[in-house]
Amino acid sequence: MTNTQVFEWSSVKKTSFDLKAYLSERRSQVEAALEQSITVVYPEILYESMRYSLLAGGKRLRPILCLACCELVGGTVEMAMPTACTLEMIHTFSLIHDDLPTMDNDDYRRGKLTNHKIYGENIAVLAGDALLAYAFEFLVLQTKGVAAQQLLQVVAKLAHAVAATGLVGGQVVDLQSEGLQNIDIETLNFIHAHKTGALLEASILSGAMLAKADNEILQKLSCYASYIGLAFQIVDDVLDVIGTQEELGKTPGKDQKAQKVTYPSLWGIEESKRKSQELVDLAKAELVDFGDKAQPLMAIADYITARTH
Amino acid sequence: MTNTQVFEWSSVKKTSFDLKAYLSERRSQVEAALEQSITVVYPEILYESMRYSLLAGGKRLRPILCLACCELVGGTVEMAMPTACTLEMIHTFSLIHDDLPTMDNDDYRRGKLTNHKIYGENIAVLAGDALLAYAFEFLVLQTKGVAAQQLLQVVAKLAHAVAATGLVGGQVVDLQSEGLQNIDIETLNFIHAHKTGALLEASILSGAMLAKADNEILQKLSCYASYIGLAFQIVDDVLDVIGTQEELGKTPGKDQKAQKVTYPSLWGIEESKRKSQELVDLAKAELVDFGDKAQPLMAIADYITARTH
Repeated sequence: MTNTQVFEWSSVKKTSFDLKAYLSERRSQVEAALEQSITVVYPEILYESMRYSLLAGGKRLRPILCLACCELVGGTVEMAMPTACTLEMIHTFSLIHDDLPTMDNDDYRRGKLTNHKIYGENIAVLAGDALLAYAFEFLVLQTKGVAAQQLLQVVAKLAHAVAATGLVGGQVVDLQSEGLQNIDIETLNFIHAHKTGALLEASILSGAMLAKADNEILQKLSCYASYIGLAFQIVDDVLDVIGTQEELGKTPGKDQKAQKVTYPSLWGIEESKRKSQELVDLAKAELVDFGDKAQPLMAIADYITARTH
Repeated sequence: MTNTQVFEWSSVKKTSFDLKAYLSERRSQVEAALEQSITVVYPEILYESMRYSLLAGGKRLRPILCLACCELVGGTVEMAMPTACTLEMIHTFSLIHDDLPTMDNDDYRRGKLTNHKIYGENIAVLAGDALLAYAFEFLVLQTKGVAAQQLLQVVAKLAHAVAATGLVGGQVVDLQSEGLQNIDIETLNFIHAHKTGALLEASILSGAMLAKADNEILQKLSCYASYIGLAFQIVDDVLDVIGTQEELGKTPGKDQKAQKVTYPSLWGIEESKRKSQELVDLAKAELVDFGDKAQPLMAIADYITARTH
């Protein structure tokens, strides 16, 4: 089954921009920076546990978006790489804690045992805590060539995206909604806007902030972030219904089995597909003023509805 | 039983400085600022859980030290109050996570049920996470009249004091040492220097950093912090052996019962008392150049060996 069979209505525009090569190169740069970001010292088990989850792969979409937005506004990859790593540390902290027995109780993530299955629940909690705290230290100490005021703006933005106003707030509402059949669209939107949307937006805005983007640019990028964030979640839900095990690398139908309220369960498959495409188009419309410099962000938006996993 | 009966060798010098009134006034100021630092909004349970532990009382020693050190170097209480609140948010995060069933599994703290006993384990983990993240946002957005560079220095210092290099690292070694009889003095020192010492030092240095203290001053205050931190821990251990239930507000003999390695178990009671007094004297010696401005910090050092709980 090809992409177009899953999303036959999605037409990835043929441009000269090679997204696959772009993502692959950026991912390698991010992996190399992450690899060097944490050295194992005493107490080794803690640092090993942090590295285990931080270096467990993944698309590295948040760091890549951060780098892309910094360049979009005239900054460099070097300026934004520490922030990119910080974002991945924060994302990893949230995954480790979400997987805990007291939360989603997941044994596997990306085909590997979850942190607490390897290191125990207590170390997993602490590895998450340490990653979250270290993220801010790393950001401040490693960032070069950025004015102090901009860096403070980024610290506040990232912290806001994690706290009760961000992904932690989203996780709380998600936990409270578990098993409930009557979740409304506002609650579903709240969960996604906070649990995944907030850090995605922070990834995009932090890159731009580092390069001193003005409020008008930040506003456009904030809209871009909201649109692709919601589109991403809708596609995720759709793929859970129509994707195959092979494509997803995980068991499909998990949401239905858990009787989870999802976008397809509220809107149906076809309407969900239509809405996700509409959101991607809206996201891209925010970028028109940037011209060719927005090619990576345009292509990433297209990729969301084209992807099969 | 009076203070001098427990620590008959400690002679709190009679000065014109009224430590009790000073601590009481500062504590009220800190409580008022903390009370306003978090407003309950949706999802209410999360914010209520954060407030429950943040406003559960305590000596507020870390914020008070921060304010005192900012004033010592010529800064104001207003400049340092957001940092003072941030320190208490971080301290509270660490208490909530330490009390979890997977960690120390404590049902009570300061005579009140622990966070997870009221809100459940999953919310307690998330309330801790949210407090830690919000601490950094609050610090950056609420601090006024401090140069951006100094504020970044404080962010990095606090993050370092929390991460694997700080209290989380100390908690890991403490967990690993549980039930072991052959803990050596180096391991015991590592645990205390990290689990409690790091944030205490950060409380002291952050206040001074806000007021642009130079490296020489920071060095003196760092020594002061190390001395009083260790003295505090030794006295804590001694009180666990010789204090009464009434004085401590908790059951004495807990360490012995848990067969925990402590300073008195390594050195004996008398030698532990002697060393803690020696440390307090060393701490005070670091402050002589500051003259009368150091009175609060001198008195706080004396208070450590004079206290009975």
